[in-house]
This record gives sequence, structure tokens and C-alpha cells, in this order.
Amino acid sequence: MENIQKKIGIIGGGQLGKMMIQEAKKMGFYVMVLDPAEKCPAHTLVDEHIIADFDDKKAIRFLAENTDVVTYEFEHIDADILQKLEQEGKKIYPTAKSLKVIQNKYTQKKLLLEYNLPTPEFCAVFSQEDIKQAGEKYGFPFMLKSCTGGYDGKGNFVIEKEQDISKAYETLGNGKLDIMAEKFFHFIMEISVLACRDINGDIQVYPVAENIHKDSILDETKVPANISKQTTQKAMDLAKRVMEVFEGVGMFCVEMFVNKQGNVLVNEVAPRPHNSGHYTIEACVTSQFEQHIRAITALPLGSPELLKPVVMRNLLGEQNSAGKSCVLGADEALAISGVFLHIYGKEESRPKRKMGHITVIADSVEQAAEKAEKAKNALKIYGESKSFLD
Amino acid sequence: MENIQKKIGIIGGGQLGKMMIQEAKKMGFYVMVLDPAEKCPAHTLVDEHIIADFDDKKAIRFLAENTDVVTYEFEHIDADILQKLEQEGKKIYPTAKSLKVIQNKYTQKKLLLEYNLPTPEFCAVFSQEDIKQAGEKYGFPFMLKSCTGGYDGKGNFVIEKEQDISKAYETLGNGKLDIMAEKFFHFIMEISVLACRDINGDIQVYPVAENIHKDSILDETKVPANISKQTTQKAMDLAKRVMEVFEGVGMFCVEMFVNKQGNVLVNEVAPRPHNSGHYTIEACVTSQFEQHIRAITALPLGSPELLKPVVMRNLLGEQNSAGKSCVLGADEALAISGVFLHIYGKEESRPKRKMGHITVIADSVEQAAEKAEKAKNALKIYGESKSFLD
Repeated sequence: MENIQKKIGIIGGGQLGKMMIQEAKKMGFYVMVLDPAEKCPAHTLVDEHIIADFDDKKAIRFLAENTDVVTYEFEHIDADILQKLEQEGKKIYPTAKSLKVIQNKYTQKKLLLEYNLPTPEFCAVFSQEDIKQAGEKYGFPFMLKSCTGGYDGKGNFVIEKEQDISKAYETLGNGKLDIMAEKFFHFIMEISVLACRDINGDIQVYPVAENIHKDSILDETKVPANISKQTTQKAMDLAKRVMEVFEGVGMFCVEMFVNKQGNVLVNEVAPRPHNSGHYTIEACVTSQFEQHIRAITALPLGSPELLKPVVMRNLLGEQNSAGKSCVLGADEALAISGVFLHIYGKEESRPKRKMGHITVIADSVEQAAEKAEKAKNALKIYGESKSFLD
Repeated sequence: MENIQKKIGIIGGGQLGKMMIQEAKKMGFYVMVLDPAEKCPAHTLVDEHIIADFDDKKAIRFLAENTDVVTYEFEHIDADILQKLEQEGKKIYPTAKSLKVIQNKYTQKKLLLEYNLPTPEFCAVFSQEDIKQAGEKYGFPFMLKSCTGGYDGKGNFVIEKEQDISKAYETLGNGKLDIMAEKFFHFIMEISVLACRDINGDIQVYPVAENIHKDSILDETKVPANISKQTTQKAMDLAKRVMEVFEGVGMFCVEMFVNKQGNVLVNEVAPRPHNSGHYTIEACVTSQFEQHIRAITALPLGSPELLKPVVMRNLLGEQNSAGKSCVLGADEALAISGVFLHIYGKEESRPKRKMGHITVIADSVEQAAEKAEKAKNALKIYGESKSFLD
């Protein structure tokens, strides 16, 4: 019997940090966040806010030394300082070791390969000549990827033909960054599966989510995914294996591809709650954020059971507008039954910036998708310096 | 199409205020709270905290003048100042008018009577002689009640026999406070129904909750209540009528009695989210707190549909202990599936102080109640100045 009233440190006070904090505060935890932005989405919800850069080692040390456990909302963090703090006895979840393997796509895939987990063929490349050889091996199109630092499609380049190689090479750091080539997998659906592992090794796997991206940014998540029972089971088993292989503690998201034959491949692993898991707040017994907080504070995990079919749509800042954010159409959107609105509280809207999302629960995914489409069309988030009508 | 990004002012930063704020922040609202306690449960979740007494008219005015809408988490507020602010054009929900009628139990019941809504017989009393006459009219036992300021059984006195009258009279203010006598209604169950009305008059009614009190403090809420379909319909219709009669805007809770014959009487109306409605956070499509925030910000209401049978248990500070609060047994409690823990974040635990609650969802109320009993027994909240084992 341990006193639950621990202090949680979170690196990153964006929307994922904010939603973690909402659940942490529900259970009465003390929360300290590290984020360079004074008015980050989490700023009004925390007990303490360390305003410092994410690579400020002193600030990260301060966070770890003044809390009982440290977690993070994104994976581009200096894993070495986290590892050092771990060696000094601080609790960091997910561990620095799993973060280190995951934050480099090459080492991440190497580990998947080592344990025979299906993933597209890949190889490290160091020159344009290497890329050319990869193209000969994999055929066109194929992918060129930065090993580190990518998100929302940034750091990825689709090489359609040999002539693209020099541009791809230049775009991805011109030899200054680690890059890899990857065979193109002809998928018919992108899916993701959330899984959480507690400190005792118990693993809970969420239902399979179907994801639709627009311009490489997640636009829509539908749950349950429109795939067969067998494919669903395959994907959930795969997510569980990933949690074992990476020795994850906390919430992980495993992004996967499904092809026509029902084969499932791991595309990428994220060691944190994920945009494609926001649906869990309204539609599952335990949300991904509560699950994560439970895992890192040594509490038992909750049920990931889906209560209702659900669709999530991201709300991005409108094109041709920037500045102080303004949210229009909430009245129209919320008049549709089953619609829930999340506005992250980012001060400024910018084109394609993730400003919020809607979750829609209904009796079927089709119904939820239809309502979500209407609600999304009603909602506009723009920056007041320029009208979205421009 | 109105910009949703309004400022909400809340009088009271206790657990009800905190849970309102959690939902308000989800939707991106700016929240200012007025509470005299620097470390009230809401204090880390707000944009601004006015530290002032609840009867500080200047502070209430400041709150109203710097927000778009004002609400409150308890009803013992100076309704005159709210009325004045309303006359000046400020939005106060629920309105000062409905607050004024409700906060005095006598005027509250008079209004119910006027609209033929069933409530126990009552009369105003001004002397011990009046009380004696009430006893002759109603028979023993009967109730003596303060017209204002009571909660959790405070302000109520059960007069079992004529000899109790002088003590009851003394206890309830010795003639200095308004009091009333009420016929004792031999109920077999206490129930409550939450209802919410938006600014356009749309009313949403929640399922009927069965409440069990211990020492006049709510201990357990079970939903759906173990009553017939007809009684359920009667109770829900009654709650709807109450919302119409009181012209409520926002969430109201109607506490009722049910007798052996299935008659339903209104006991008391609270113009705010209610302890017996905490179950809605996990078990309903829309929580009572989100519903309240939607109503007062002129947004359409959500569905009150129950997703799963549910039981709520309050967590009170342990006897024989006080001081800095300490929560034990969360690991054991959360190991039971379907259990959710809310800790309000009150700095100090005191005997019988409401420190948190658990919600348990399951496939039946019986199952949920059994799990809730186990979870509640595992959890202990005590003040560290004295051990709960004393």
C-alpha cells in the first residue's frame, strides 16, 4: 500500500501533455511540466511549469529531481540525459533504453527484424549511390527516410523514379543526417493499435483503429477498423509482441500497414499516447491518457474495451490565416448528437497546425463518420490576423 | 456562428468547480475561479484565481466583469449581488431568480406546490408553539429544517417526540433563522435525477440514480435505480417539470423520495452539478459537468444516455486523523476492473470530509456494487498527523 500522491514530471506541454495532465489531475497527482512556451496548452493545468528548452539538460535534471516519475509527450528528446538520470535511480517511463531504440527508425526496425516482427524491407544508405542500389533492389517507388526527428510525414520522401534521388538526398539532410531506404509496401489501409504495459509486465491492447491521412497528417481515425476478424487479431497480437520486444512501460502506439491479402506490417512505433488514440477518451472504458498515467505511476491498468463505434477527426488551423485563434461553428457541430469537441488552447492558429479534434460516437462507424464529416465541416479554426474566407 | 473561446467565471473551486473546469478546459475555455482557499482543488487548473471570500461583493463583481458568463458550484451565495449584475447585463447561469427561489427551502417548496409538483407537506414555523402544532398536524416523527444554508444533513432535525421540540428549535438557530416543519415521508428509497436545460429551453434528463446516505452524507449512488419502469418514468418526468417550473439554465439535481406504493415526491432541488451525478463522467455519453458547461456557454446539450450500469462511492477522510492528506490502497482498488479513482486534491484530510470518489462500471449494478465495495474497503484517505489505525 503506497501513497498514491506522487509527483509526475512531463516533458512537453502540448495537447498530448495536456490530456495526460487532465487524467493525472483527476486522480490527484501533482504535475510539473517542462515546455519552452509560456502559454503551451498545458500551462494552466499544472502545479509547476518549467519554462525551458527541451534540450536544456539542467532543466530536465531539475524536473527529474523534483518529481517521482518522468514521462514525455514526444520522442525527440536527448535519451542520453534520460539514461543518465535513470542510472542515478530516477524513474523514467517509457525507459531511456526503449526511447533510444525507437527514436532512431533504423535501430527501431532492426529490433523488429531481430524478433521476426514483420516490417517493410529496409537498409541504411550513406550516399546517392547507395540510394540508387536500394532502388534497384526494391523497385520504384520506394521510401527514403530520415532515421531521426521525423513526424507528420516530415523526414519522409517517396522516390518515384531514379531522377528523384538527388532531390531526396538533398531534402533529407544532404548526407549530414542518418537516412535509410525502405521498400514501398502496397497497403490498402493504415491502421494503428495502442498498447500499454505496466511495470509488472501486464499488457493491455486497444481495438484496431483505421487511419486516414491527408497531406501526411492524420485526418480521420475510425474504430473498429473495417478489417476481418483474423486481420484484427493479427494486428492486436503484433502490438502485444512489440510491447514485449521494446520492454515498453506506458502507452505505445504501433502504426501498421494492411495489404489486400490481409498481411500486417509494422510501419512505426511511438513510445507515447498518440493522435490516433484520442478516440479512447469518449469511446473506451479507460482512455489512453489515464492508462499511461496508471502505468507510469505503478498502478494496475484499466480495461481498453470499446463502448461504442467511434470516429475522430483532427481540427487543423485554416489555410490563409494565422494569429490569435478563433473557433467558429461549435454550436452547429455540437448540435449533432454524439459529437465531442476538444480545443487544445493553442494561442495561435497557423495553417495545418493541430488545434483540436472532434470525437463522434454512434451505433455504427458509418453513422459516426457521417456525423463527424458534418461536424468537421461546421467547425473552422482560424487566426484572426487574416480571415479564413480569404 | 459565435467564437467559442469565451471566459467562464466560477464561484467556488471545490471538487464540483474542479470537475466543471476539467470539462471547460477540454473545450478550450478560459476559466477564472473565485475561492478563498489558495490551494482549493481547482487552483492548479484555472487561468485566474481570485482569492476572496464568497460574500465579497467586489470580488464577485470583478469575476462577472472579466468573464462572459458566471456560474457557481454551491447555492449559498448572495443572490442579490448576482441579480444586480444580471440587471447590468451580465450572464449568470443558473439565473439569480432561480437561485433565489431554490436557496430558501420554503420558497422552493412553495413554488413546487404552486405548480402541483408532489412534495412532502410543509409549513413555515416561527415559535416552539408553531412546531408543536405542526407535530399535531403531521404526527411524529416529523422534520424541522432551516430554510437556508443546510447541506449534508446539516440544518435538518428529526423530531421524534414532543420533548425534542425545544432542542430542535435551539439547534436550528433559536428563532434567529427561518425554519420550517415538514411531514415525514415514509420512503423506501432516495433517488435523484439530473436534468439540464439550455438557453433555448431544450431539456435533457439523465437516468434515475438510487442514493444511499450514511450519517446524512451521500455514500453510494447506483444507476439505474432498482425501481419499476413506471416509477422511473414518473421520476424523469418530474425532473423535467422542475426544470420548466424553475426556468433553470444549466445542470440541476432533483432529489426525490419513493415510497412502497411507487409514489415519487420532490425532496430538494440543487441548481448545479451534484455529488449523485458523478457517475455520469464514466458511465454516460455526456458528463454532468460537460453538460453544464455546454448549457451556460450557449452550446447545444449532449446525450445523457447511460453506457453501462454504474456505482459511485464517496471517499471520506478517515476518522481519528487530520492534516496533510495521504491516499492508500489505490493499487489494490484499481486492480479491480471497471474501477476509476477521483482524488479531489484537498490538501488536508479531516474525518468525513469528501476527499474523492470511485466510479465502478460493470455489466450489472449488482456486479458494480460488489466491486465498488471491495475497492472502497481497499482505499483509505487519512491525515498524516494521526494514523488511521488509531
